[in-house]
Order: sequence, then structure tokens, then C-alpha cells
Amino acid sequence: MLALTFDGAVALRDVPEPNPGSGHAVVALRLAGICGTDLELTRGYKGFGGVLGHEFVGEVVRCDDDPQWQGKRVVGEINLGCGTCERCASGLRSHCASRRVLGILDHPGCFGERFVLPAANLHAVPGSVADEQAVFTEPLAAAFRIFEQVALEPTMHVAVIGDGKLGLLVVMALRAREIPVTLVGRHPRKLALVAGPGVRTSVAAELGGERFDVVVEATGSRDGLALAFAHVRPRGTVVLKSTVHGTVELPTAALVVDEIQLVGSRCGPFDVALQAMASGAVDPRPLIEARYPLVEGERAFEHASRRGVLKVLLGA
Amino acid sequence: MLALTFDGAVALRDVPEPNPGSGHAVVALRLAGICGTDLELTRGYKGFGGVLGHEFVGEVVRCDDDPQWQGKRVVGEINLGCGTCERCASGLRSHCASRRVLGILDHPGCFGERFVLPAANLHAVPGSVADEQAVFTEPLAAAFRIFEQVALEPTMHVAVIGDGKLGLLVVMALRAREIPVTLVGRHPRKLALVAGPGVRTSVAAELGGERFDVVVEATGSRDGLALAFAHVRPRGTVVLKSTVHGTVELPTAALVVDEIQLVGSRCGPFDVALQAMASGAVDPRPLIEARYPLVEGERAFEHASRRGVLKVLLGA
Repeated sequence: MLALTFDGAVALRDVPEPNPGSGHAVVALRLAGICGTDLELTRGYKGFGGVLGHEFVGEVVRCDDDPQWQGKRVVGEINLGCGTCERCASGLRSHCASRRVLGILDHPGCFGERFVLPAANLHAVPGSVADEQAVFTEPLAAAFRIFEQVALEPTMHVAVIGDGKLGLLVVMALRAREIPVTLVGRHPRKLALVAGPGVRTSVAAELGGERFDVVVEATGSRDGLALAFAHVRPRGTVVLKSTVHGTVELPTAALVVDEIQLVGSRCGPFDVALQAMASGAVDPRPLIEARYPLVEGERAFEHASRRGVLKVLLGA
Repeated sequence: MLALTFDGAVALRDVPEPNPGSGHAVVALRLAGICGTDLELTRGYKGFGGVLGHEFVGEVVRCDDDPQWQGKRVVGEINLGCGTCERCASGLRSHCASRRVLGILDHPGCFGERFVLPAANLHAVPGSVADEQAVFTEPLAAAFRIFEQVALEPTMHVAVIGDGKLGLLVVMALRAREIPVTLVGRHPRKLALVAGPGVRTSVAAELGGERFDVVVEATGSRDGLALAFAHVRPRGTVVLKSTVHGTVELPTAALVVDEIQLVGSRCGPFDVALQAMASGAVDPRPLIEARYPLVEGERAFEHASRRGVLKVLLGA
């Protein structure tokens, strides 16, 4: 079967059919999304090699151990815990020390005609959620993760820094929860995608000395954290979403003196994301920039890596 | 009057008597402590110049606006808010944007025969607390600040990294609240000061891959944060106490992937610290390394700046 792989370069390759282990389902790809993390992986992050991809909506074509999944349209959580350690036992399989991660760590990704995941990772997609929405479940869940970590209130002064894909999804999630937000970005076209009631848009230079109770850093760049610190109030919270390869210089004395809380934030609740799309509270489709068939995956990757490009999708 | 000043070098100087503004008290020094921050200031932190010192116990010799303080033995909070801004109005004067700070920022410090502070900053010292204990109120309060920021429980696995003055006080505070703790340090002599029931001591190399729910970073060094991150569990908390001059290189991707919370922590509750010493729950006197009269302040500073030295006091 065909799959989009990375091994020093992104390349479409003929690879063996995936072999489902016990409790695993074989999923046929319907639609996949190229994420900033995929681009980072192709720049050397984690020394990755193999089939890329972790954002998908697909159809279960085989699940011997749990046949109810057969034929279901699904999305899937990307972390595969060992299932036996203390963290997995306490429900924290996404933090299992020996976890594998779909298309990121020791488990082939979803940018192929078929791929495998444990049935326990799957979520059925409600009929009212289109493929073009469902494919955003994983990053939208990551956006909703913030609500599990920070007690956000409509009276708070909240900013999101970064008008890329994740920043825009975070703004959509905040809007769905009726939390007013200032989106700080660089691209008028992207800022316009979410402008409207409850969403103020700004460029960084216009903020002046303004400070926020909570700043979500979703720039995906090395400079984002400094900007976040410049605009968080004393005793405020910075939620860090960007996984930047390498280290970032941090003025820790300022962090101590202003008693800032810095909160690392990763994967979130798929059920919440699916429900938000099913109810119409969030519709991520305006983020779609382009769609390519899987066989044109190399071109799709080249497109996704251009500056300022939003979500590039890969069809089956 | 005599005071210990910094102006490129630490020097005992004859300076004018302090002039109390409205609502201020004149305090005669009984005993002062040299803090790591004082040493940082003499290395260029904040471009400081003037009378040093912010840890003290003294006696009020004049307080025209609030005569009840006259003759009282006191300690004092070090932040002087403007008193009129929104933060001061909401009780956050320690985070007032135009605050002055005793011996640190735009307000002469306590390493002089007399100094001034707003009466609102003063706390009377209970009779059962000796000068040699009361002089630790400010750093001990900073240690107790952690309990206001992190919900610590006796079942948690807690580590303190750094066996310097602040690290040892944090361990004493944890012991007072019956939270078992592992102190990670380098100096057998210092580790021994707090060893005993509920306190395990270790050197970093012996920790292996051990991970803690909460790690308090109190090394005062640039390397402490990396060590803290190496030993905090996923979704754990790192409390950052060290104010290191300059920036620290931070592996932010790991912070995001492991969803670590990094909590900047500064000044704390004086009343809690005084009560802990009055009740006997904490006795910081084993931390006293040496005591010099104020007139030998230059020697005292030289002593305090030697590697591995604990608290050096300056007597009146």
C-alpha cells in the first residue's frame, strides 16, 4: 500500500500492509491533516523516521477483537500506552513513559492507505460531523485541553498569541465557551477568519503595555514565549502549546518576581471536540487551505511548509 | 549614621539619617541577614546602587502617624506599593508595577543603623521568637508561599533541589506541615542540618530516574531548573524560587509534552512564618553561619559570598 514517509526526505513509498496486534483496529484513511509537529519532525525533531501523520478521520476495515467497530467512521487518540504501568493504570496512558505515538514515536502514522490503532483509542464520529471537520478533532481537542488545566472565566482578560492553525482553534474553543479573547497574530487574512463578537484581533505592536490574566502561546516559534511573558500580568498564567525543537531562552528571574505560572499543554479530550463540532459551536473548516490526494503527498507537504499556510489535508 | 552600601563595591559609609514619609516608621536595626539576592545585586542584578539589605528584625524608634508601633520589635514586608493603583487596591501591593522594594529597588535597605518602612509593612515579633529566629521571617515566609500556590498533600512525592539557605527553609516549612520531602543537595554538612523523620537527603547523582510530583527549585544557580525538569513526573509541578540574573535555556518542548507546570514563587506570608517559629514548628537558627557587627559589614559580605556558606548575620 502507499504511504507518505520521512527518512531524511518526505517521500511517497510502497510499504507493507500494517499488521494489527491484539486489540487493534485497521483503519482505512478518509482524510488526514498535516500538523506543525509533522513539519517539525521533518526538520529533525525526535529523530523521526517512518510513516508520518497523526490527524485523521478514517473507517475501520477490520477489528477482530471488537467487531462493533467494523465499518465505523472514526477519529483516534494518538498516544499508545504500554497498558501495564502505573501511569496507564491511573488513566494517564498519554504520559506512559514507554508510550508510542501515532506517526510521532515508534508507531507508523496515518498518512497511508491503511494504519492501525488500538480500538481503545478510537472515537466514533457523529453523523452530523463532516470528514472535513472530523479531521480537526485531534488539534481541536488539544485546544480544549486548556479548559482542563486553567479555570477560565468570561470576566478574565485572555490572549492567544499566534494566528496559525492551533492558535485559531484555541480561539474557536474559547468562543464556544463564551470566553472573550484577544488574538495576537501577524496575518490579516488569518485574523479575519475568527474576528467577530467576543474575538478582538491585534498585531503584537499594537498591544503596547497591555497585560492579560492568561496568555496562550501557540505561535510554534522560538520567539512566542518572550512575547507571552511580555503581556502576562503578575500572577498570571502562560499556557504553552508550541513544541519547538531545541531550547528557548527564558528570563526566569522575571518569572519568579512576577510569580507567573507556565503551563505545558498537549493532547486533549476528543469527546469534547467532537461534541463541539456536532453542536455547531465550533466549525474548523475555514482553516482548510488546500486538499491533495495521498498520492500527491509530497506536494501537499511542500505546500504545508510554506510560510503562513493553514491546514493542508490529504485525501484517501 | 553608618550603612552598608553598594556602588560597584560593598562599602560601609556614613549616610544621612533616613527621613520617614507619611505613614512610615523609623526602625533601628537589631539583626539583619545577608541573602542570595543581596549577593546577586552586587553582581549586577537590577543595576542596584545604595544601601543594601531586606532581611531584618528591628525596633521601631519613631512612627508619628501610628504611635502604637513605638518601641515594638518588628520584622517588615519588603514591597512598597504605590497604594493607589488597581493592584494595590486589590491587595497585591507586592506586585504593584511602580513598587519600591527595601534594599532592592528604589528604597534604601536595612543594612544601616536605621531605616524606614511604611507602618503597614510591619509585623510585631512574638516574645517567644528570638532575634536570631525573627531575622529569618522574610525568607521563611517565602518558603511558606509555596503552600499558597500548590496544593501539597502528605501523600505526594516532593523534592527540594538546593541545600542553600532557601532550600533548607523550604524543607523546614514542609516538615512543619508534615509533608515528607527529599532534599537534593551537594553538601553533607548542610543536608545533615535537616535530616530526620520525614526528610530524606540525597545527592542528585543518587536519584537515578526518580520522578517527583512536585519539585521546588531553590539552587540559586542556572543549572537548577534543568535538574528540576529531569526529576518531575509528567503533569507534575516545578516551583521556581531562584532569581538568577540573565536567562536560562529551557527545553520547552519537553515541558509541553510532559505538561509540566512551572510556578514562579516569591514573597510569602509573614504571619505564617512568625507563627511557625513562635509555635516551635520551625527553628531556623541552625542555618546561622556567622554573625558580624554592622561595622564589619564588608567582611560579613565577603564571608557570605564564599561557596557553601549559609546565613551570615549583621548585628546592630
